[in-house]
Amino acid sequence: MPIHVLAFDGDDTLWHNESRFHLTQSALRDLLRRHVPDADVDSHLYEVEMRNLGLYGYGVKSFTLSMIETAIELTSGQIPAADLEVILGWGKRMLGEPTELLDGVQSTLSEIRARYSVLLITKGDLFDQESKLARSGLAELFAGIEILSDKTIDSYRSLLRRRSIKPEEFIMVGNSLRSDIAPVVALGARAIHIPYHVTWNHENMPEEALPATGWYRLDRISELGALLESIDQPATKEA
Amino acid sequence: MPIHVLAFDGDDTLWHNESRFHLTQSALRDLLRRHVPDADVDSHLYEVEMRNLGLYGYGVKSFTLSMIETAIELTSGQIPAADLEVILGWGKRMLGEPTELLDGVQSTLSEIRARYSVLLITKGDLFDQESKLARSGLAELFAGIEILSDKTIDSYRSLLRRRSIKPEEFIMVGNSLRSDIAPVVALGARAIHIPYHVTWNHENMPEEALPATGWYRLDRISELGALLESIDQPATKEA
Repeated sequence: MPIHVLAFDGDDTLWHNESRFHLTQSALRDLLRRHVPDADVDSHLYEVEMRNLGLYGYGVKSFTLSMIETAIELTSGQIPAADLEVILGWGKRMLGEPTELLDGVQSTLSEIRARYSVLLITKGDLFDQESKLARSGLAELFAGIEILSDKTIDSYRSLLRRRSIKPEEFIMVGNSLRSDIAPVVALGARAIHIPYHVTWNHENMPEEALPATGWYRLDRISELGALLESIDQPATKEA
Repeated sequence: MPIHVLAFDGDDTLWHNESRFHLTQSALRDLLRRHVPDADVDSHLYEVEMRNLGLYGYGVKSFTLSMIETAIELTSGQIPAADLEVILGWGKRMLGEPTELLDGVQSTLSEIRARYSVLLITKGDLFDQESKLARSGLAELFAGIEILSDKTIDSYRSLLRRRSIKPEEFIMVGNSLRSDIAPVVALGARAIHIPYHVTWNHENMPEEALPATGWYRLDRISELGALLESIDQPATKEA
């Protein structure tokens, strides 16, 4: 079946994201080690984030609240409020930063949208994602935009139904095996994995847990056009 | 033109919301006055919230971050981290509370949906709104759900276009003149205002700023069926 709809993830697929969380987290490590030199800041923060995920969901605001909680817990409440104010400032900086596109994104999207209906399917904080998209300058390239609170089999299924898209004619492109590849392949649609140089623990999943077929891997987004040409079967060749 | 689509706001239209923010804010007042007895907590918090709105958007996580910022500022950084931990806890409690429906909501929605296509159009934090909706038990009553980061003329216009709804056949029901009534009436659609007993300053707008026609007011949602019968003109009577 020919491909009709190509959907892109946003964070770490079209624009840099996780690298900023990494930078902020390393600043948090430095800040807290001044108070508690032996603290394992990274694993405590991750634990707090996972504990809060069901209440907070994803995004920078959730991350900021979890950093503050981690700072208070690891210092047994001894951290001065001025340091917590610094953490608040990091969150605001992250929310206000320009959206920095990955290499080749603009030209690839411009090329692809001439051949397919192109969607953005991103997850996380609605306000932050809309704001990043606006700052990306890419909004007009998409035929539709979907911001989901989470990317699961169910959320993809209802999105495809709502838009009357058949799984066989749909391809998802993204950097997260857990969010962009596994649930899409499970629905009988196809997916293209383009890894980003850092991945949040939570988005990791063992590759063995994925089926062997139904998805592809590229090193960079600029290779997408060639891959699509090789896998897209024109309607006339259908069985 | 006959009404085809009836859309409901969520917060303070279908379920209690602002009253919870009020309760938390009054606890914040008590907490901070122990440190700075003369502080005008309410107006400082509002100032911080407005300053942060463009970065944070609406919702409980934004409110929690702004409460923490207010607490640090008003105490000139002297507030102990343990008190900030208490504020974090209030935010979590708000996010986890059961969704408490307003009187008459369930029966009115059940009745209305037999006659119109019924949407939920709510604004704020995506994750929190989805979670509240799930806990409300109302999700299955809606033909469609829209969670917007803000309710403006533009966001209503693109929603109506996306769903191929003509303004003349659309009615919005909500408690906020600013978010549910004014932008909808400006588009040539109609709106029904059902005030809630408390309104956040930001949602207030002078009634004189609204056109005299195109909208109605009810005291409670249970009166909706009767109002709709009186204003809905069957297609055969169209000019």
